[in-house]
Amino acid sequence: MVYQHHVRVRYGETDQMGVVHHGAYVAYLEEARTEWLRELGHPYGALEKAGIGLPVRNLSIRYRAAAHYEDHLVVTIWVQRLRAASITFGYTIRRVDEEAMLAQAEVELACVSLAQRPLTAQALPAEIRAALEATQQ
Amino acid sequence: MVYQHHVRVRYGETDQMGVVHHGAYVAYLEEARTEWLRELGHPYGALEKAGIGLPVRNLSIRYRAAAHYEDHLVVTIWVQRLRAASITFGYTIRRVDEEAMLAQAEVELACVSLAQRPLTAQALPAEIRAALEATQQ
Amino acid sequence: MVYQHHVRVRYGETDQMGVVHHGAYVAYLEEARTEWLRELGHPYGALEKAGIGLPVRNLSIRYRAAAHYEDHLVVTIWVQRLRAASITFGYTIRRVDEEAMLAQAEVELACVSLAQRPLTAQALPAEIRAALEATQQ
Amino acid sequence: MVYQHHVRVRYGETDQMGVVHHGAYVAYLEEARTEWLRELGHPYGALEKAGIGLPVRNLSIRYRAAAHYEDHLVVTIWVQRLRAASITFGYTIRRVDEEAMLAQAEVELACVSLAQRPLTAQALPAEIRAALEATQQ
Repeated sequence: MVYQHHVRVRYGETDQMGVVHHGAYVAYLEEARTEWLRELGHPYGALEKAGIGLPVRNLSIRYRAAAHYEDHLVVTIWVQRLRAASITFGYTIRRVDEEAMLAQAEVELACVSLAQRPLTAQALPAEIRAALEATQQ
Repeated sequence: MVYQHHVRVRYGETDQMGVVHHGAYVAYLEEARTEWLRELGHPYGALEKAGIGLPVRNLSIRYRAAAHYEDHLVVTIWVQRLRAASITFGYTIRRVDEEAMLAQAEVELACVSLAQRPLTAQALPAEIRAALEATQQ
Repeated sequence: MVYQHHVRVRYGETDQMGVVHHGAYVAYLEEARTEWLRELGHPYGALEKAGIGLPVRNLSIRYRAAAHYEDHLVVTIWVQRLRAASITFGYTIRRVDEEAMLAQAEVELACVSLAQRPLTAQALPAEIRAALEATQQ
Repeated sequence: MVYQHHVRVRYGETDQMGVVHHGAYVAYLEEARTEWLRELGHPYGALEKAGIGLPVRNLSIRYRAAAHYEDHLVVTIWVQRLRAASITFGYTIRRVDEEAMLAQAEVELACVSLAQRPLTAQALPAEIRAALEATQQ
């Protein structure tokens, strides 16, 4: 199972090359995964209130074609890998109603306890693990 | 007394009009005032650790001419007004070695206690007030 | 007539005070006005293709209460003033289903020809002026 | 040969986890490479004026430890790989005067002609290739 998140490019996300700046994609990916977590019944804000954080440990993006101002983008996200204390999401970004991929990405989140600094690894809560595993079937 | 902060425009701060996006100036103003506070012996991070925050209550920027990628900008900042629980900074932004103003701004910060939510007003700490008053002479 | 634009706060728009960073509002205001222009039949991108730009000349925001991660915000926008070569929009920002204002803002756009650098003032195209005037009745 | 670029963390680059948001690193990497290109005598702005762009094709960042507000960071950058129409830079990010790596990154830029849309690959200009090759000796 995948989730699809829709984004409209903001003007301030373009740069003087006339395309969406590569840094803007990081926000699109983040927005897609927190929308999905909310959809799955586990809003990320509630997780933090319970003392658990999911900071990004690895990020990789492959840019294949430029996006432009006012483009209506679809970010497709799925669970690529689940470990004891980490989740890896896979992503593609396309324009709505177009086949061609604009970008592919992978983001690995570590599961940490926010109670201690520096942040220390902790097992993914069972309900979130279950919800994410269910999407892999 | 005024303080001058130097900024080099980042590529991602431009937009497709080929100029610096108006939102980027907000970061320049913020950077200038926290650099100045550090210079005056009151780094803003230490203030927050002591439980005091200075959130922005009013922001106004007048844009007069465009800045461009790689421009070397000088942000001039001074204390415009000091009240019991607020500070207003005045600003101008120019290119180094140029007379013409690119922008003028005013930012009012409220002084609040971070211990309570919602954030509640509190008097500006005496040492910071003294340091800022000294710049007005 | 006013227009209402809905925004979900992104995680990256928060800061370490635990609230939405004041700079993020600039993007919300911009997104609201370009969505409204599209709704009115004048997408800003088409305007630029026709050689006309609407850079920001004045921006002012009054912050009254903090917004938080995952808040569902409603940006209300209206035409405050129309001049020969400028438009001023008024704004309020609230949480959906709440009365209290989080912020009020005013943004003045200049109408310019993109064909020349530096950008030079030009009259607002008649159809856009008509569409905006109609919202004032 | 490597180049070292110094960055002071901006307040707006933190998030509510109390650390630097992962997206902010993208700007640090970009700033480091354009400062280095300028240092090498090939400011990126001049390149664009000559009709050549270097958009990002691949980006990967491994986050190892958190950076904080007001941290003074050092971004170390070097040429990892040179191809006919692409450059790959390697990076590490540390706090000044500390051994521990906060992040490692790799960014691949494609060399394209800006004269055509969509952007089309073109050979890296000979002088830039020479300047970058010299840093690899």
